[in-house]
Amino acid sequence: MPASYAYLGPEGTFTEVALRTLPESATRELVPVVSVAAALDAVRNGEAEAAFVPIENSVEGGITATLDELVAGAPLMIYREVLLSITFALLVRPGTKLSDIKTVTAHPAAQPQVRNWMKANLPTEVVWESAASNADGARLVQEGRYDAAFAGEFAAARYGLEALETGIHDAENAQTRFVLVGRPARPAAPTGADKTSVVIWQRDDHPGALRDLLGEFAVRGVNLMLLQSRPTGQGIGNYCFAVDAEGHITDRRVAEALMGLRRICLEVRYLGSYPRADATVQDVPTPRQGTSDEEFVAAADWVARCQDGRF
Amino acid sequence: MPASYAYLGPEGTFTEVALRTLPESATRELVPVVSVAAALDAVRNGEAEAAFVPIENSVEGGITATLDELVAGAPLMIYREVLLSITFALLVRPGTKLSDIKTVTAHPAAQPQVRNWMKANLPTEVVWESAASNADGARLVQEGRYDAAFAGEFAAARYGLEALETGIHDAENAQTRFVLVGRPARPAAPTGADKTSVVIWQRDDHPGALRDLLGEFAVRGVNLMLLQSRPTGQGIGNYCFAVDAEGHITDRRVAEALMGLRRICLEVRYLGSYPRADATVQDVPTPRQGTSDEEFVAAADWVARCQDGRF
Amino acid sequence: MPASYAYLGPEGTFTEVALRTLPESATRELVPVVSVAAALDAVRNGEAEAAFVPIENSVEGGITATLDELVAGAPLMIYREVLLSITFALLVRPGTKLSDIKTVTAHPAAQPQVRNWMKANLPTEVVWESAASNADGARLVQEGRYDAAFAGEFAAARYGLEALETGIHDAENAQTRFVLVGRPARPAAPTGADKTSVVIWQRDDHPGALRDLLGEFAVRGVNLMLLQSRPTGQGIGNYCFAVDAEGHITDRRVAEALMGLRRICLEVRYLGSYPRADATVQDVPTPRQGTSDEEFVAAADWVARCQDGRF
Amino acid sequence: MPASYAYLGPEGTFTEVALRTLPESATRELVPVVSVAAALDAVRNGEAEAAFVPIENSVEGGITATLDELVAGAPLMIYREVLLSITFALLVRPGTKLSDIKTVTAHPAAQPQVRNWMKANLPTEVVWESAASNADGARLVQEGRYDAAFAGEFAAARYGLEALETGIHDAENAQTRFVLVGRPARPAAPTGADKTSVVIWQRDDHPGALRDLLGEFAVRGVNLMLLQSRPTGQGIGNYCFAVDAEGHITDRRVAEALMGLRRICLEVRYLGSYPRADATVQDVPTPRQGTSDEEFVAAADWVARCQDGRF
Repeated sequence: MPASYAYLGPEGTFTEVALRTLPESATRELVPVVSVAAALDAVRNGEAEAAFVPIENSVEGGITATLDELVAGAPLMIYREVLLSITFALLVRPGTKLSDIKTVTAHPAAQPQVRNWMKANLPTEVVWESAASNADGARLVQEGRYDAAFAGEFAAARYGLEALETGIHDAENAQTRFVLVGRPARPAAPTGADKTSVVIWQRDDHPGALRDLLGEFAVRGVNLMLLQSRPTGQGIGNYCFAVDAEGHITDRRVAEALMGLRRICLEVRYLGSYPRADATVQDVPTPRQGTSDEEFVAAADWVARCQDGRF
Repeated sequence: MPASYAYLGPEGTFTEVALRTLPESATRELVPVVSVAAALDAVRNGEAEAAFVPIENSVEGGITATLDELVAGAPLMIYREVLLSITFALLVRPGTKLSDIKTVTAHPAAQPQVRNWMKANLPTEVVWESAASNADGARLVQEGRYDAAFAGEFAAARYGLEALETGIHDAENAQTRFVLVGRPARPAAPTGADKTSVVIWQRDDHPGALRDLLGEFAVRGVNLMLLQSRPTGQGIGNYCFAVDAEGHITDRRVAEALMGLRRICLEVRYLGSYPRADATVQDVPTPRQGTSDEEFVAAADWVARCQDGRF
Repeated sequence: MPASYAYLGPEGTFTEVALRTLPESATRELVPVVSVAAALDAVRNGEAEAAFVPIENSVEGGITATLDELVAGAPLMIYREVLLSITFALLVRPGTKLSDIKTVTAHPAAQPQVRNWMKANLPTEVVWESAASNADGARLVQEGRYDAAFAGEFAAARYGLEALETGIHDAENAQTRFVLVGRPARPAAPTGADKTSVVIWQRDDHPGALRDLLGEFAVRGVNLMLLQSRPTGQGIGNYCFAVDAEGHITDRRVAEALMGLRRICLEVRYLGSYPRADATVQDVPTPRQGTSDEEFVAAADWVARCQDGRF
Repeated sequence: MPASYAYLGPEGTFTEVALRTLPESATRELVPVVSVAAALDAVRNGEAEAAFVPIENSVEGGITATLDELVAGAPLMIYREVLLSITFALLVRPGTKLSDIKTVTAHPAAQPQVRNWMKANLPTEVVWESAASNADGARLVQEGRYDAAFAGEFAAARYGLEALETGIHDAENAQTRFVLVGRPARPAAPTGADKTSVVIWQRDDHPGALRDLLGEFAVRGVNLMLLQSRPTGQGIGNYCFAVDAEGHITDRRVAEALMGLRRICLEVRYLGSYPRADATVQDVPTPRQGTSDEEFVAAADWVARCQDGRF
């Protein structure tokens, strides 16, 4: 039995398309599951080697279901990330015309990406209803329950539909970021264009508390790529923060910043270090003066010599 | 015609219950609308005096639909906030027993608050389907489409249902925060226990950029209550931040911090200053030494005297 | 009786030379006095309009006698500063040769500036004795008490000496900074290349206390030119700080920084804003984005509009 | 030949008294030399095992001659510090009365400590002249050159003088801090109440540059005890900073702060870690939460486990 990847199904969604861009997916059994929680549970209980789920998109922001699943429960780790540009097609049963459309469906996450297009192109009295997924919406159109569905163009063939329109996207640069999540393991070797994800819980809450946490990164020249607050479940106003930082945990500046956080935070959960999907090593700026590995090593060596009286 | 408040409907939801806790709601026409966007649009186009919508809950965090509507479009302003403790009742048609339940529905936001209870108390094969609102879920149970709905206990009478169970809440202290939103106006007078909401867009993105923004609050002793990133729509990784700070815009420390943000940020959108629903003036700590209005005034007076040579 | 300036005498020192570079000195009676304390006391008790004293030199650093007199006692204010390049001449009675020199004198402050030259050029057995001033050293050579004196070349004529060597300076760029000090008055109008001097006393002493003080300047983009600790007289380890900051107290960023200091410090003593002697407006970099007067005014205006509900 | 300590002479000064409080001085030859520079040169060229010199006093602040000698030249290291309370006696030849005194002498450093006493107790026409040291002043009184000298009471016997008055001190808590300086060696083991001295040179000079340097200490909870600017000799306004920090270089928080400085500064010179003379381990507050050695070790261990995939 091949190792398997669980992914947020059903088949025919953007998630599957993104997953198939990973070379390693070709050698795994790809298993669609009904929810992000189910995908991550499959990893936690050993049914799947890894799970592939959306974690952030450029219209809706952090995918809270995924963040919350990573924040709580047994530790998991992000192995890889994938970026996919998202544009929608309007899928209908063959023969349907724009003016025929009275009901339309898609996953709720699609709505902000197609809202303006709908206003401009569909009859004003059209009714939107949410579907469990974009693929499911397509299926419901096939079954006749709705007149049209917004979904990836690739879903048309699977459900015997045709695309009345393609390339629909209210926002330019609409992208979704997916992650391949597994059990804790040694992180992939650094590539020079890496990202490190952690979740941090503040110890207390005074003026400057959050600034001081971010100072642990700033003082070591580590840039932040994402700061997403998530409720801790302890009542309104109690938040933890999911943070993506530039660099790999084996970069000295990142390692020392994480140590700093670990010391001053109530808790830090490491979520992995992995190659950036949005950049290669050529795109990554040189670390700020004083924060390269070489400079860290030289400074540590100097302190050691001082401690030994050899200076 | 009375002035009207548009609220996220339908009738019989937690939103309506929260709205009715505001004394001024008694003298307004309360108009349920289908979405947060519709509620805020009603204010923007003059159909409603104000809109009442959820903005944050202790399980799901910031309500992104509301935040995104406040962030974009014509400026709006938060006049008031209301906190409501959220517990669910399981509503069924009279005579239904727990063991009869094969399908259950509610708004998706209810799911994380009832998930554990469902696992422990409902048959394992029970199917969850999302409803447009909790009240709508109750209506669908009344119509026979589902066996049970999670909703506020107050919805039972309206839909001829009975509550098999009440007080369902996976998380202790589950609360939702609602805001009354209107067109820009002079903020309510400070009460001593106030909150100020803004949205900020960073000018650039270097190590420490976000720390420096937060430093504008910290250096003036202003505590933060919420920091919620929202995508700007300019692509993955481009975020603005919705910030709730302790204090009122007429507090000198808050006013100066906002000025500081305005100067260093690409943009700052003021969303209002209003009484805190979670605290009264007795609960609010004395400002940190050096940050009271009296100290600001004395320091400004001293600088003026120095500028005049009278020191 | 003309208004008078008291200056650190005697006549014929670098101080007098520096003072005469000020155009206003031509219309005042210039009165040499025996010490910095005497000069400043003459101002405090109304005998002199202003005092002219050294405050900093590039070899010895801050002139502690001057700093301490400004820090304590009735408030005084710096009106102007003058920079003078310092090189020494070796003055001898006519006929004396280098190899004749067995004793040499000067003010102790001259020693670090001529030490290396002495080693290289004078007999090794030469004896150094301190004089009350460089001019007084010259006088003592004239009287035959010492063989040679280090002093300004301009002192030779006054004391009937000749310069065996001129341009003596161990350190390149040796300069002394002098200040014209008077009673509190409206500071000179800003020139665009100004400096503001204050003395600050910390309220307490915790990790980060001094960093936070400096943060009041940094967060508003105000650069520091001098930070000189001076003991408070309350025992070892108790210091206040004399600070020179770029800019004028009527610059908004400087005024707000001073207000911030005033609020968080135990005490702040304003010592004046005055034109920089080391730079003209062409040399001064544009304020960091967000810290110009225009941006301060625009931000204050924005906050005022928010407070009024006009945004 | 016994190992020797060079100290700032002559015999009979406060320096010798302070030196003799060190137990190890009993087993060394104590050699008075004419200047701080001579004392430190004796160490550098191997003539003395160590030098004992004043470095800071509560009236005058940092002793610039000592600081400048430590800042430049071959590296040296502070082994120990001694605090001595300083009060003066007025020494006269037997038979002299207060009203007889027309001339008085002492080292210039004594002046600010006796000035007010002089005004209150000596004839107004009394003339002050500086001596090379307080002991030398006493010698000159013995020789009849001056009528009285301010010096330590212990100097009376040595020079056949008597103390007309003892316990003279304008400032309460007048103390001088002395250091025993040697060649680089392994620092003394930490005692729990230690101090670490360094000199730092900034790389550049932008708003916030000095704040950022101090941030390296602050972010790791290291308190500063002294920050003394000293000119670099590169012209007015060019300073390095002598810093005394609480803690020992083998304390993790101190070591990491030094590493941070080393990376961002142009240069850092380590001057040693040694027991504090002003405090014992009982006086030292517990390190701020998150900055103890145990927390550093635990955090480093956690990062190592994350790097290994064992979390």
